[in-house]
Amino acid sequence: MGIVVAFEGKDNRQASIERLVELVEHDMERVNDAILVRAHSHIDLIPELAGHLINSGGKRLRPMLTIATAQMCGYHGDAHVKLATAVEFMHTATLLHDDVVDESDLRRGKQAARLIWGNQASVLVGDYLLGQAFKMMVETKSLDSLRILANAACVIAEGEVMQLAAQHDISTSEDAYMQVIGAKTAVLFAAAAEVGAVIAGRPREEVSALESYGRNLGIAFQLVDDALDYSGRQALLGKSVGDDFREGKITLPVVLSYRRGDVEERRFWKRTIADCDQVADDLAHAVRLMERHGALEATIERARHYGTIARDALEIFPHSQHRAALLEAIDFCVARTS
Amino acid sequence: MGIVVAFEGKDNRQASIERLVELVEHDMERVNDAILVRAHSHIDLIPELAGHLINSGGKRLRPMLTIATAQMCGYHGDAHVKLATAVEFMHTATLLHDDVVDESDLRRGKQAARLIWGNQASVLVGDYLLGQAFKMMVETKSLDSLRILANAACVIAEGEVMQLAAQHDISTSEDAYMQVIGAKTAVLFAAAAEVGAVIAGRPREEVSALESYGRNLGIAFQLVDDALDYSGRQALLGKSVGDDFREGKITLPVVLSYRRGDVEERRFWKRTIADCDQVADDLAHAVRLMERHGALEATIERARHYGTIARDALEIFPHSQHRAALLEAIDFCVARTS
Repeated sequence: MGIVVAFEGKDNRQASIERLVELVEHDMERVNDAILVRAHSHIDLIPELAGHLINSGGKRLRPMLTIATAQMCGYHGDAHVKLATAVEFMHTATLLHDDVVDESDLRRGKQAARLIWGNQASVLVGDYLLGQAFKMMVETKSLDSLRILANAACVIAEGEVMQLAAQHDISTSEDAYMQVIGAKTAVLFAAAAEVGAVIAGRPREEVSALESYGRNLGIAFQLVDDALDYSGRQALLGKSVGDDFREGKITLPVVLSYRRGDVEERRFWKRTIADCDQVADDLAHAVRLMERHGALEATIERARHYGTIARDALEIFPHSQHRAALLEAIDFCVARTS
Repeated sequence: MGIVVAFEGKDNRQASIERLVELVEHDMERVNDAILVRAHSHIDLIPELAGHLINSGGKRLRPMLTIATAQMCGYHGDAHVKLATAVEFMHTATLLHDDVVDESDLRRGKQAARLIWGNQASVLVGDYLLGQAFKMMVETKSLDSLRILANAACVIAEGEVMQLAAQHDISTSEDAYMQVIGAKTAVLFAAAAEVGAVIAGRPREEVSALESYGRNLGIAFQLVDDALDYSGRQALLGKSVGDDFREGKITLPVVLSYRRGDVEERRFWKRTIADCDQVADDLAHAVRLMERHGALEATIERARHYGTIARDALEIFPHSQHRAALLEAIDFCVARTS
């Protein structure tokens, strides 16, 4: 199910995240150790449930951003490991609460935790991880990092509530949708990159440059995610294709297809997305409509736009291995097929 | 339904919280203002849902503890107002997440938020309030307060998970139950009282005395809450009597009645609490069994024990209006009928 879209733009021929992974490898091992230690509790259910999600093979892109930006800013110390771990815990907590919210059945190709342990446990273990995240931030004694990440926690929750309010609302505009993902996804990317400079004590200009880099990278990442859900490549991610469609989720490919479609097509989107009234062939038809209107290409094109802004944000930093790796990460996020 | 237990012990003839309320009145007005301002968001659903719970007439005992202890410790500044507001938000977030967890239908006599806005919104608005709580703590720049409250957030979540794991487990021991309420209830009372001394820069001895006061007061408060759920006075609280029973919740009156009962009685508790298989007359029978074994009086007696510890914890402080009011609050918590 789904079509294969040519994600590789001319700029992105060999986009890979390998260089970034290598540069942060040593510190990320410490992050991975900290994740294990900090997810622990004498209440067995907590590490058990948390581990289910933590070990499910996420890319750990967000903590890598913190490590990489701290390294690029010449930071020598331990606080970036704690902040990176806190960022990953905030992300994991969001996923746990999100699964309850979306009533998702799959997460990273595995059964969602809530189906094994129940909604209740997912909410509470999410709360525990959020608490642990704040404890680690406090240990760094960086009030600026605390401010940035506490603010991110609020904005992420606002974004999720916005998404909930716009659920099945087929009249959602592109701008409204961008506001949702700007809050629910981009803010944690932004904070993850920003605190790398903050902990290194870099000047305001560099802090806000990395905030901008993270924010725009996060938007690009989310848009590509939206497109992948309707693409044949998605099967590789372990997610079944069409998860968003089946949940009646508003994403940019749907927003664009609805707007570009004729009266009959809009009726189709209203039935399948707004009313969530779907039959067997509907996903295939949805993909055909997206193809007809170039909705997936347009979504990737939007992602490239934000990728370009992220690229320019990094320009003020001198050439370095880290800068090159962070630039390559943009191409990777835009060109990724899983 | 339910019997009226004589809660008034000989020590508690005129227990009232009025003196405490008067002493903190001015600062609590600032807390109430801050609650309104900080629960605000441009996403209307957030203040709407949060307001439902915030305006439902809770006693605001926890933030009052922060204000009163800070005042007793001679604090002059604004940080205690922020910390008190943060404490109340942490409590509200727990209630929102708790309602999802317990599938409660009533909260403070009103429809639970999750029944009006859904589980999903309750989880997310709880997350938002938690984020706002941390933002306020960061504004105080008190890393010690941040550490204490972040730790409390973790322990509360652990307590809730413990409670979940012990759900319907009729073999739960008194010790295991005390561990649950020590985590889920007492830790926030402890933190609320402790940060009052911390923000005032008081020595370690006073900080830990107030921590102990709060912890033991919290335990006493919870035990009385447990007893009230089976008492005729409970109707005054706006909660229907027997909520805990109908949910098959393990509380101390049940733990004691099960242990003190005979084979047939234990069979009754297994059916009604472990299997949650209840018929119309069961609540009345449960109350009769509690009466037979003095389970409610024993629960209140336990509460008095912790109240006494809280009382002794305050002894190191010189006589003052505040100390007297905090002592009276213990009697109030133990003797309260709602």
